[in-house]
Amino acid sequence: MQKTHKTKRYTKTSLMKPIKIVIAFIAFFSVMTSYGQKVLNMKDFNIEGIKDVTPIVVKALEKCKEEGISTLIFPKGTYHFYPTFAPEFFCEIVNNDNGLKRTAFPLIDFHDFVVDGNGSDFIFHGKMIPFIIEKSSNIKITNLSIDWEVPFTLEGLVVANDSEKNTFDIEVKTPYVVEFERLYLSLEREDSPYERKFGKRFAMWEHDNLEIAESILWDPKTMAPMYHTNQYDTHERGVKAEELKKGLIRLKAEMKKLPPIGSIFVSKGDYLQNRTSPAVRIVTSKNLTFKDVNVHHAGSMGLIAERSENITLDGFNVVLKKGSGRMITSTADATHFCNVKGNITIKNCTFENMLDDGTNIHGTYVRVNKIIDEYTLAVETYHPHQNGFLFGEEGDLVQILDQKNLQITSEPMILKKVKRINEKISYLTFDKPITGKVEIYDGIENISWQPTAVIENNVIRNNRARSMILKTRKKVVVRNNHLSSQMASFRITGDLGLWNESSPSNDLLIENNVIENCVYGGNGAQAIFLIDPQYVDKKNFEGKYSKNITIRNNIIKTFDSSILVAMSVDGLTFENNQIIQTDTFKPIFPDAENVQIINCNNVLIKGNTYRKIDGKQTTITIDQKSTNVKVVKGDAFSKKSSKK
Amino acid sequence: MQKTHKTKRYTKTSLMKPIKIVIAFIAFFSVMTSYGQKVLNMKDFNIEGIKDVTPIVVKALEKCKEEGISTLIFPKGTYHFYPTFAPEFFCEIVNNDNGLKRTAFPLIDFHDFVVDGNGSDFIFHGKMIPFIIEKSSNIKITNLSIDWEVPFTLEGLVVANDSEKNTFDIEVKTPYVVEFERLYLSLEREDSPYERKFGKRFAMWEHDNLEIAESILWDPKTMAPMYHTNQYDTHERGVKAEELKKGLIRLKAEMKKLPPIGSIFVSKGDYLQNRTSPAVRIVTSKNLTFKDVNVHHAGSMGLIAERSENITLDGFNVVLKKGSGRMITSTADATHFCNVKGNITIKNCTFENMLDDGTNIHGTYVRVNKIIDEYTLAVETYHPHQNGFLFGEEGDLVQILDQKNLQITSEPMILKKVKRINEKISYLTFDKPITGKVEIYDGIENISWQPTAVIENNVIRNNRARSMILKTRKKVVVRNNHLSSQMASFRITGDLGLWNESSPSNDLLIENNVIENCVYGGNGAQAIFLIDPQYVDKKNFEGKYSKNITIRNNIIKTFDSSILVAMSVDGLTFENNQIIQTDTFKPIFPDAENVQIINCNNVLIKGNTYRKIDGKQTTITIDQKSTNVKVVKGDAFSKKSSKK
Repeated sequence: MQKTHKTKRYTKTSLMKPIKIVIAFIAFFSVMTSYGQKVLNMKDFNIEGIKDVTPIVVKALEKCKEEGISTLIFPKGTYHFYPTFAPEFFCEIVNNDNGLKRTAFPLIDFHDFVVDGNGSDFIFHGKMIPFIIEKSSNIKITNLSIDWEVPFTLEGLVVANDSEKNTFDIEVKTPYVVEFERLYLSLEREDSPYERKFGKRFAMWEHDNLEIAESILWDPKTMAPMYHTNQYDTHERGVKAEELKKGLIRLKAEMKKLPPIGSIFVSKGDYLQNRTSPAVRIVTSKNLTFKDVNVHHAGSMGLIAERSENITLDGFNVVLKKGSGRMITSTADATHFCNVKGNITIKNCTFENMLDDGTNIHGTYVRVNKIIDEYTLAVETYHPHQNGFLFGEEGDLVQILDQKNLQITSEPMILKKVKRINEKISYLTFDKPITGKVEIYDGIENISWQPTAVIENNVIRNNRARSMILKTRKKVVVRNNHLSSQMASFRITGDLGLWNESSPSNDLLIENNVIENCVYGGNGAQAIFLIDPQYVDKKNFEGKYSKNITIRNNIIKTFDSSILVAMSVDGLTFENNQIIQTDTFKPIFPDAENVQIINCNNVLIKGNTYRKIDGKQTTITIDQKSTNVKVVKGDAFSKKSSKK
Repeated sequence: MQKTHKTKRYTKTSLMKPIKIVIAFIAFFSVMTSYGQKVLNMKDFNIEGIKDVTPIVVKALEKCKEEGISTLIFPKGTYHFYPTFAPEFFCEIVNNDNGLKRTAFPLIDFHDFVVDGNGSDFIFHGKMIPFIIEKSSNIKITNLSIDWEVPFTLEGLVVANDSEKNTFDIEVKTPYVVEFERLYLSLEREDSPYERKFGKRFAMWEHDNLEIAESILWDPKTMAPMYHTNQYDTHERGVKAEELKKGLIRLKAEMKKLPPIGSIFVSKGDYLQNRTSPAVRIVTSKNLTFKDVNVHHAGSMGLIAERSENITLDGFNVVLKKGSGRMITSTADATHFCNVKGNITIKNCTFENMLDDGTNIHGTYVRVNKIIDEYTLAVETYHPHQNGFLFGEEGDLVQILDQKNLQITSEPMILKKVKRINEKISYLTFDKPITGKVEIYDGIENISWQPTAVIENNVIRNNRARSMILKTRKKVVVRNNHLSSQMASFRITGDLGLWNESSPSNDLLIENNVIENCVYGGNGAQAIFLIDPQYVDKKNFEGKYSKNITIRNNIIKTFDSSILVAMSVDGLTFENNQIIQTDTFKPIFPDAENVQIINCNNVLIKGNTYRKIDGKQTTITIDQKSTNVKVVKGDAFSKKSSKK
C-alpha cells in the first residue's frame, strides 16, 4: 500500500551501502557553536534522499543527549519516517489507545533542547507517534510539518444512493479491504513478503485493517461536517459492504437518511482501535514550546499532554495540507490537556477539520472501588481510554466528591502513598482518615494539577464536536478567537458517569470572540455556550458545580435558537454579546429556548443584543432552583424572562 | 455473566468488613517450621469463604519473599481468583498474545519455593494468567487444579441443519452476544455498572467479546474432534448469525458439509485475540517442577515456557473436569517450550481435548532484515506471535542458515551484543565478521538454547492437531506413551516461512509407544510420523535437515494408509514397529503411500509388521535423492519397495 514518493528509487537492497556510508559519516558531523550553543545539523548525516530517516534521526538524538547538544536542525526538505527501525515504548496515553508505540523523536529525559525543522515536511508511515516528549524540560519544537503518507481515515465520495435498498455507493482512493461483507480501512504497512505469500487473511494479522465505524459525512462545499450531520447517522458497526469494482463500494446500513450524492463519507474505524497515533505525546514534562508547527494529519490527536507543566502552542496548527484533497486532519481532538498544571497558552493557532474538539483542558476523576482501611481507598479509572492513567503521585492535594451531585465532601487531603495494582486499580493512602467521608463510586479529584490557560487569536473551524471543552479550577481567558464547530462552541462540564473528566470552571472569561455557524450537527439542542455538569440523576441534584464565568463582548452569528445553557453556576455574567441570527441553515431546533438558567446563583444578563430573522421573541427560562438572577432592562432577554 | 458459585453471598459491599478483618489477621499468621523450612499456611489468612482470594494470595506471596518462607500451602478447598485486584505485567509471550497480563501468582524473582495446593481447586475468572514464573529458580507447584468459571470457548450442540439454506442451529449455554449478524463469545467480566447503564455496545469496549472464528466440530460420542473434521471447515471469519431465541443461534457459512446434528460446534474466537490466558507462563527461570497439577481449562496453552532451563512435568495434566460437560481443555497446546535448555521431562501426564498440540519443543529462528555492518545484522521476528521474542542474549552461540534450503552456512558465532529496537527488530553483533556469509531473509538459529527431553508414560488424546512437535538438536527420548491425535502423532519439522520454528531433530528416539486413531482430521495425508522440513521451494532443495532418528517397537493402530513421511534425514531407523490397520474409520486417503522416503541418507527399515484389512499391498516410495536406503528382507515394506 506504500505510495510512490520521490525517494522510491532506494530499494531495500540498494540501501545497504548508503546506510553504511551514512554511519561512517556520523564520525565527521560538525557541531556549530552559535552563542555558546551546540548545534547538530542533520545535513552532516547526509539524510537527503534516504528512504527512511527514522534510524538516523534516532542516532542523532542519542548524540545530542550524549554530547549536550542543544539544537537539532534539519536542512529544509521532505523526510520520510517509517516505523521499521523506530524505537518503541509501552505507552499508556490518556484519552488515546495504549500499547507499544514507535516513535521517530524519542525526546525522553531531554532538557534545554530545540528541534528545528527549518520549514521541512516530515511524512510518517503507518502507526507511529512522531514526537514522544517524556520526563523532559525546556523543549522547543519549531518550523516543521507532520503528515502521514496514508491517512488513518477512509474518505469516500458518495456517487450514488438508493433509498429503496437503503444503500449508497462511495468512491474510495485510500487503501481498503472488503471481506465477508465488511469494509476495512487499511493503514500503511511495510512491504510484506508474508502477505504476498499468504494473501490478505494474513494481512489481518497486523491489526492494520480497521472495520469502518465512527463514521460521519463531510460536505466538500463547506469543507466541514454536513449540516444536520446527525440525521445521516449510520450504525457505528456492522455496515454491510460490497465491492462493485476496484475503488467503488456499495454500503448498506440502517440510516435515518441516505447520504447525498456529492458528500464525503468519512470513517476512522472501530472504537478503541482508532486513537493509536497522535502526532505529539507529552507526559511528565515541563516548559514546552511549539512554534510554527503544522500537523496535517494524525491517527488520533494533534497533541496530547498529561501530567506536565507550562505548555505554549504558538502557531501550532492542525490544518489540511493544501492540495491534499483530504477532508480530515486529526482523527481526534486537535489538542488535549489532562492533569496539566502551570499555564497553557494556545495562541495564533488554526485548528480545522478534526474529527473531535479543538481543545479539551481537564483533569480526570478516579472513582472509589473499595474502602481498604481508615486511610486507604482502592480507586479505579473507569473509561477504557483511561486505563493506566496516572491520577496522582505522593504529595498531590486531592479531595473527594459525591457521585450523585458532584459536590466536594472532604477537605483537601495529601496523597501519602500511591500504589498501582493494575491499569484499572490503584490504592491511594491519604494523610487524613476518610472514614465516613466516602462511599463506593464517589470521585476523587486531583487539585494540585490544575492549569491556568490563555487561549487567544486562534481559528477553530470545520470540526466535528466542540471548539473547546474547558475544565479547570484556575483562571482561563479565551479571547479574540474565530470559532465554528459542529456542536457547542464551548462546553463546560464534568462527570462521574462516563468520561469522568474533572474539574469545575471556577474563573473563566470568554470575550471578544467571533462565533459563527455552530451547533449545526443536530445532536440535540446544543447551546453555543453549554455549561452542563452531568449528574447521575438529572432532575435531582443540588449545590453549584462551577463559579465565576463571564461571557462578554462576543459576536455570535448563528442560525439556530439555543445560545446559552447554564447549569449549577455560582456567579455567571452574560454581557454585551452581539447575537445575530443568520440564514446559513434552516433551524434544527427552532423551539429551543435561547437562554436557559438552571440551578444558578448570582447571574447577571446585561447589554446583549439579538438580531432575529425568524420573527420570534427572544426566550429565556430560569428554573426554580436559581436565585439572584438579574436580567437588566434593555437586554435582549429582558422582555420575556420567565421563572419556570 | 458471572456464574453462581458457593461464595456468591459475598457482595461487593458486604465484603468490605471481612477484607479489613483479613488484613488485620495477617499480623498473626503462623509460620510452621518443618525440617528447618519456613511454611506459610493460607488458613491463617482466613481465606475460606472469601469471594476473591487474589489480593490475599498476592499479599501472602509478598510475605513469603520478604521473610524467606519456602512453602505456601493452602487448606484443601475451592478458591476463586478474580482479576480486579490482581497485579499486572506487560508480557511478551512467544506463541501467545502479548499485552498487560494480570496474575494471581506473580512468582517473579522467587527461589527455592513451593506452592502446595493440598488438593485444592483454583477457579479463575476472566482474562488472567494463574501462574507467572519469571527470573525464578527451584520452584515446585503441586497438588492443585486450575479451571475457569466461564470458558474461553463457545461450545454449541448442533440441533438442526438445513442443507438448502446452508445453515445449522446450535444450542449455547456459555455467554454470547449476537450483534449485526455476528456471533461473539463473551468472556467473564466483573459486574459492570457501566454496562447496565450504557448497554452492550459499551460491553464491547473491554474486548471481552470475541467474534467466533477458528472453529471446529467435536464429537460428543468420542469426546474428540469429528472424524474427517476438515470436511466441515467453515470460514474462519464472517460466519453469519441469527439468534432464534435465547440460547439458540442459527449460523450460516459456506461449508463443504453441514455439521451433523448431535455434534458440538466449538469456537475460540478470532486469531491473535484467543491466546491471552495460558495457565502457566514461564520465562528466564530454572529448575521448575510441576507435580500433580490439573489444568482443566486455559485461554491459550496449559503451560508455556521460554528461555528457561530444566523443567519437569510429573503428573501435570491438561484434562477435562469430570461432569463439566465441556469438550475443550486448553484452547492452544497443552504444553509448549521455546528456547529452553537443560532437560525437559514430561512423565505421567495426561493431555486431552486441547485445541492444539500435546507438546511442542522448539527454538525460534529470527530472520535477517538488514545487514548493518561487518559484524552486525538487523534481524526480525516474523510471525506476530513472536513479537517481542527474546531470541538471544550476549554470550549465546548462534549460526546462520540459508532461507531456501535450511542449511547452515556459517560456523558457530558468539553474540557479542543484542540491542532490541522494537518488538520486531533487534540488532545482533557477532564475534566474527558475517560479510559474504549472509543474505536478506536468511535465518539465525540459537544453538545455546536447545534442550534434551524425556517424554514417557503419558497419555495424549482427543486433541486437534498433533501429539508432539519436536525440534531440538539434543537427545530426545519418547517412550511408553499412549497417543491419539487428529493430525500426525509426531511432527518433526522446521521452517523459515511462517512460524520460523527451529531446530532439526538430531538425536531422537521414539520407542514402545502405543499410537491409535491418529490422522483422522483429513488435513491432507498426514503421516503418523511426519518428518517434513518446510522448504521455500518444495521441489528444489538439497542437504539434510535432521539426523539420527530412530522409531522402533511402537504399536501403531491406524485406519488410514500414511504411516511415515521422512524428508531430509541423515540416519533414520524404522524398526520393529507393529502396524495394525483398524476399521474405526473409513480411510480418508486410502491411496497414500504407507512410507515415503525423500532426500534421506542411511535409512534402515527392518522388522516392521503391518496387518492390513484393506487387502492392499504395503507401499513405500524412495525418491531419487535418497541414498543408502536399506529395507531389510522380511520387513512389511520389503516386497514393494521401489525407487521413484
